[in-house]
Amino acid sequence: MTNKNIGFVGVGRMGANMARRLNSLGFSITALYDVNRAAAEELAMDLGTFTCSSLAEVTAAAEVIFTVVPDDAAQLSIFAEPTAGGDTLLTSDAQGKIFINCATLSPSTHREVEQRAEEAGAQTLEACMASSINQALEGTLYLMCSGKKAVFDSVQEVLLPLSDGGKLLSYIGETGQAAQLKALVNMVMNINTAGLAEGLGLAAALRLDLQTVMKVFSQTGANSRVLATDGEDMVNRDHACFFSAAHAAKDSGIALQLAKEQGLDLPLAAATKAQYDKLAALGFGQLDKSAIAELTFPGRGKA
Amino acid sequence: MTNKNIGFVGVGRMGANMARRLNSLGFSITALYDVNRAAAEELAMDLGTFTCSSLAEVTAAAEVIFTVVPDDAAQLSIFAEPTAGGDTLLTSDAQGKIFINCATLSPSTHREVEQRAEEAGAQTLEACMASSINQALEGTLYLMCSGKKAVFDSVQEVLLPLSDGGKLLSYIGETGQAAQLKALVNMVMNINTAGLAEGLGLAAALRLDLQTVMKVFSQTGANSRVLATDGEDMVNRDHACFFSAAHAAKDSGIALQLAKEQGLDLPLAAATKAQYDKLAALGFGQLDKSAIAELTFPGRGKA
Repeated sequence: MTNKNIGFVGVGRMGANMARRLNSLGFSITALYDVNRAAAEELAMDLGTFTCSSLAEVTAAAEVIFTVVPDDAAQLSIFAEPTAGGDTLLTSDAQGKIFINCATLSPSTHREVEQRAEEAGAQTLEACMASSINQALEGTLYLMCSGKKAVFDSVQEVLLPLSDGGKLLSYIGETGQAAQLKALVNMVMNINTAGLAEGLGLAAALRLDLQTVMKVFSQTGANSRVLATDGEDMVNRDHACFFSAAHAAKDSGIALQLAKEQGLDLPLAAATKAQYDKLAALGFGQLDKSAIAELTFPGRGKA
Repeated sequence: MTNKNIGFVGVGRMGANMARRLNSLGFSITALYDVNRAAAEELAMDLGTFTCSSLAEVTAAAEVIFTVVPDDAAQLSIFAEPTAGGDTLLTSDAQGKIFINCATLSPSTHREVEQRAEEAGAQTLEACMASSINQALEGTLYLMCSGKKAVFDSVQEVLLPLSDGGKLLSYIGETGQAAQLKALVNMVMNINTAGLAEGLGLAAALRLDLQTVMKVFSQTGANSRVLATDGEDMVNRDHACFFSAAHAAKDSGIALQLAKEQGLDLPLAAATKAQYDKLAALGFGQLDKSAIAELTFPGRGKA
């Protein structure tokens, strides 16, 4: 275990559970910060630690700092250039510190943040997560990391207990590549999901027994991870949200933008994004991605 | 084991290996027929049994008869109405016989053949196969059966040794439904294959390490059976044919026709068929379905 002090910026459900996990193993969590001050204080009570009233305090109080914020704008804000004059993580205390950035961000934001941090004498690691809240608490996050290999190696002690002892930990390549790969994972997952919804929807229209159909799919070339995670939900119209349709549309859009920049034509990804956009236009963007089946089963069309 | 005499009509690579499998277990193969007489005679030598010079002889010489012919036209021809005057399986000897039809046929052909056979006092079982030549020889065929449940039950003794003791055997429903389900399996498989080709193609364009990408896909929501069967082949451009691109286009077309009849719009299946049609138009229809990656990897476009 590291004897380095650990901080968290952004203690929503993911960040809070990652902090709980590390705390339960005896790591020293010395700084918590969130724009929602109440959330940070509640977590600090639970963990017996302290909240910080500014980003500058976090940098001063911790050596390895996880950032788990909602989007690119928030990430660029917490890593504001020190010359801008506002509160920022990049104070003179940043020298020698390591920032592990877990938010879902564009590759270009990851690169920009890395550059700003290096100018302040700090280092960064991109740690893309392909998992959810429960996995954070259990320490079984799927973590795809990018950045300098030496930085990745230097923080193994905090990454291993979050990723099932490293079984779910991968080093992908240079900064930005983990975000690219995450977009690819979700693009392929979304295609498989939309395809499964078509297969099950047509099976329903043909009055085939859907349990038999799912069993046969699972034993043949039609098998996929989304069959296991979403098949029953599509049949039962149980669209409680684990990964929203709006999120699916967004991630497929990121991948399509990358493809466009590369001059590639990806008709399946495009058809999938169109389906998810259609679902969102019907007002169902906050349902789980399995709700795509509402577009393909006979007699549905509304969720 | 059955003491019934078994016949085979159509001893191409699939039919011949099924006959070899049953013969090796001691079943009594008493009739072999193929329009390619030499193929039938060669197999008869191997098995120590007899060829028949007409379909009528097969019906006379066997009680359970497997048919493994190439297409709907061939199937309708071997089950010609007795009143038509030509050679047919449906002679007066057909009374009480059981025909197990393993060809990949349209649901309507399966229903037509069942009706003709019943008029001749015989019974039929549709046994759709979702496997290949090696599985036939090893007795590990994936068999989806449709027809009357009583007929299915009555031929368990010959189906079990072909389907890993029944582990790979399913009863689907009424005649025609197994063919429908097979079209659905292949439709979903083709979508997943075309989607995987897009994911790996974009990964290649982004210069991500493709072995790492496939490992991450396999551990996340992007995982699928086709990742295991076709991923490496897409990367390595190894398109030796197990399931041809032309076959993929045909099966997706069957499923889309079924969807049209049901009034369903399936954009992913349509986009997939368009990709396979495009591949065939480029002259690569006889390559394996993995060749779809030739359309999505940067700098390819020709196989």
